Amino acid sequence: VQSKNDEAILDLLNEYHHADIAEILEDLNTEQASYIIKLLDSEKTSEILMEMDEGDREKILATLSTKEIAEEIEELDTDDAADMIAELSEERQIEVIAQIEDEEHKAEIRELLTYDEDTAGGLMAKELVRVNENWTVTECVREMRAQAENVTRVHSIYVVDGNEKLIGRLSLKDLLMASPRAHISTVYIPKVDFVDVNEDAEEVARIMQKYDLEAIPVVDENKVLLGRITIDDIVDVIKEEAEKDYQMAAGITQDVEADDSILQLTRARLPWLFLGLVGGIGAFLIMEGFKGTFEKYAVLFFFTPLIAAMAGNVGVQSSAIIVQGLANDDVKGSINKRLIKEMFLAALNGFILALFLFAFVWITKGSFLTALAISVSLVAVIIIAGLIGTFVPLFLDKKGIDPAIATGPFITTSNDIFGILIYFWIAKLILGI
Amino acid sequence: VQSKNDEAILDLLNEYHHADIAEILEDLNTEQASYIIKLLDSEKTSEILMEMDEGDREKILATLSTKEIAEEIEELDTDDAADMIAELSEERQIEVIAQIEDEEHKAEIRELLTYDEDTAGGLMAKELVRVNENWTVTECVREMRAQAENVTRVHSIYVVDGNEKLIGRLSLKDLLMASPRAHISTVYIPKVDFVDVNEDAEEVARIMQKYDLEAIPVVDENKVLLGRITIDDIVDVIKEEAEKDYQMAAGITQDVEADDSILQLTRARLPWLFLGLVGGIGAFLIMEGFKGTFEKYAVLFFFTPLIAAMAGNVGVQSSAIIVQGLANDDVKGSINKRLIKEMFLAALNGFILALFLFAFVWITKGSFLTALAISVSLVAVIIIAGLIGTFVPLFLDKKGIDPAIATGPFITTSNDIFGILIYFWIAKLILGI
Repeated sequence: VQSKNDEAILDLLNEYHHADIAEILEDLNTEQASYIIKLLDSEKTSEILMEMDEGDREKILATLSTKEIAEEIEELDTDDAADMIAELSEERQIEVIAQIEDEEHKAEIRELLTYDEDTAGGLMAKELVRVNENWTVTECVREMRAQAENVTRVHSIYVVDGNEKLIGRLSLKDLLMASPRAHISTVYIPKVDFVDVNEDAEEVARIMQKYDLEAIPVVDENKVLLGRITIDDIVDVIKEEAEKDYQMAAGITQDVEADDSILQLTRARLPWLFLGLVGGIGAFLIMEGFKGTFEKYAVLFFFTPLIAAMAGNVGVQSSAIIVQGLANDDVKGSINKRLIKEMFLAALNGFILALFLFAFVWITKGSFLTALAISVSLVAVIIIAGLIGTFVPLFLDKKGIDPAIATGPFITTSNDIFGILIYFWIAKLILGI
Repeated sequence: VQSKNDEAILDLLNEYHHADIAEILEDLNTEQASYIIKLLDSEKTSEILMEMDEGDREKILATLSTKEIAEEIEELDTDDAADMIAELSEERQIEVIAQIEDEEHKAEIRELLTYDEDTAGGLMAKELVRVNENWTVTECVREMRAQAENVTRVHSIYVVDGNEKLIGRLSLKDLLMASPRAHISTVYIPKVDFVDVNEDAEEVARIMQKYDLEAIPVVDENKVLLGRITIDDIVDVIKEEAEKDYQMAAGITQDVEADDSILQLTRARLPWLFLGLVGGIGAFLIMEGFKGTFEKYAVLFFFTPLIAAMAGNVGVQSSAIIVQGLANDDVKGSINKRLIKEMFLAALNGFILALFLFAFVWITKGSFLTALAISVSLVAVIIIAGLIGTFVPLFLDKKGIDPAIATGPFITTSNDIFGILIYFWIAKLILGI
């Protein structure tokens, strides 16, 4: 395909949706992809670029001149345009912005770049349909036709007063049904949800989900209408949030993907492994402290991996349930009540598991006391691991720290150490050494 | 509040959005919540009930008569209505459906109940705006006004031919701009995305996200228009999918919440813990097998928790990255290439960690050979754990099994066993015992 047969490529690609072309380009090398991007019309390529993975997009943008990038930017909605520019080096950002011809578009993108990407301002687009309360329905429809050309999807029409303050909304449906001479001020709906431009992106996602909104207007501290956020941006926020929590639980910091470089992946994974190493050395020191026991009861030491694994698993389970509950805002009641519940739950699980372990040790080792010591310790370890797994995320959440860091290696490592310590201590007590 | 001061309650609650009332009711006990539900108008309460947690909703529905439930159902869109009915016992389902007065609504709900909840049919609503290609724009607007009363949000207008087959779509914007006497067949857009009624819900979510759709029509095998799915339903699918993977990684089967009963939580957690127990017994057997060899080197045993923890952590990290990559459809290239990459990555991480461990053991134990044996084993264990963590999810995915089950306890347990086995084997080799 790549043998410079330009027309054949164009004919072929024009049949496809830009999201499909983006997938095809991701499978090509940068040179080939960049060649195709230059071949196609910027109206189409801007959409293709936005659909690509950030990494692949960056590589292609690097092969384009600032003039070419500026052309892509002209075609994009302001929110996508600002996102794409934000990925460039500061130097290239200035050059690209300078080459945008549409002055209004340029000013809007400049404004959007000033907001933090994790806030409502970072998510919003300037494209929206706004009407003045003093217009008539006819004036309004005329104005809307002009405005709607820039807006891909008209969700809601926002009504502002003379000072550009948001005062309400209007649905296309209402407009269709209203008398043409009516004033907007008599037909608009004064009840309108909105968010502050500095509101946290996750909070915006929560509000839009809770009230089933498909778009929400963004205002400044004086309620002046600045932009709007649509549900497709929120879908991305939700997905990213879920992926972040998942990675945190798996012991991966930063946002990495399977296709990132070895160095990036090492940086994301090594810190948690290091924590595991320190924990392992802690476990070593504990076991060495009980070394004297080893002479008579070597069998106890052979069960430490089992004890550590159970402590880790129980801890991860209980912390994951709490972290997920906190994220969904459905953890109610006091910390104490929750700890008592987890205690019963862990005791039940622990008792069932300990029964099996007891039978196994008694049958294979023939020592009732050893079997008892190991099983009783297992129950204690499971209960304490469950309590730690429940308490830590609740405590972090109370202190305003993201409880998700309490899952994964953090809980596993601390539970390993506590588990082994409790295990030897109880076993020693029961065996009377 | 609950002292039967009905009017005060009504006044108070009428100020709130139904999503907020749902939250308030979730904090009350069932009796109080049911009392308030009976007090309010069914137009409002049906929305409130849909916003509540499934568990809380079930409790309240249990206190209502089938007649009362049928009244709530009448107010809901068909998709929500079918979801609510599906939560009832089969016996009550029949009673409730029989008491729905609107015959069309009843037939539509019956139809929706026949689809699997994880398919497009299970997600779709029957409410949509459909126009015939032979109508004029004026006829179309008139028809739409009538239809739009049943449809909360008009996303797209679907165009069908004489046989009710989907042939295209129309945007409200286009309709606003078209001449009133034009025929729909001359203004509609023949390019329209659609999904089959039996399509998997996750695949529908993927398509809607990829093409940035806010609604998609659902058709049967003859392309007859059956219903439509809106983006808010897809948001729920995405969230549920992410939560399922997260729970799987944490070793929790089934969909449980922090507020479920102890028995439900035990059922979800015990199987994975049992797997851990079996793995722990496996580790015990391995260690016992090396018992004789290591009378001299008890110190080796003290490092088994460290080895097991590192093997588990590395395995979870690499499997999580692969599972997430597979879910996002961005794992490219062959399994072999990926395994080689993971090998280098693990070797790099392992080498850095082993250096620290070597220093620690050499300094505290004063034995170069012991330090070497433990460190070299650590590198080997980390590499093999990384390879297992990479290979298993890729292999499962190839075989058509959800790779998410390869994360969490499954990978941890198998890596524990392999890790300990490799550790002792290599240590034995180096120490020459």
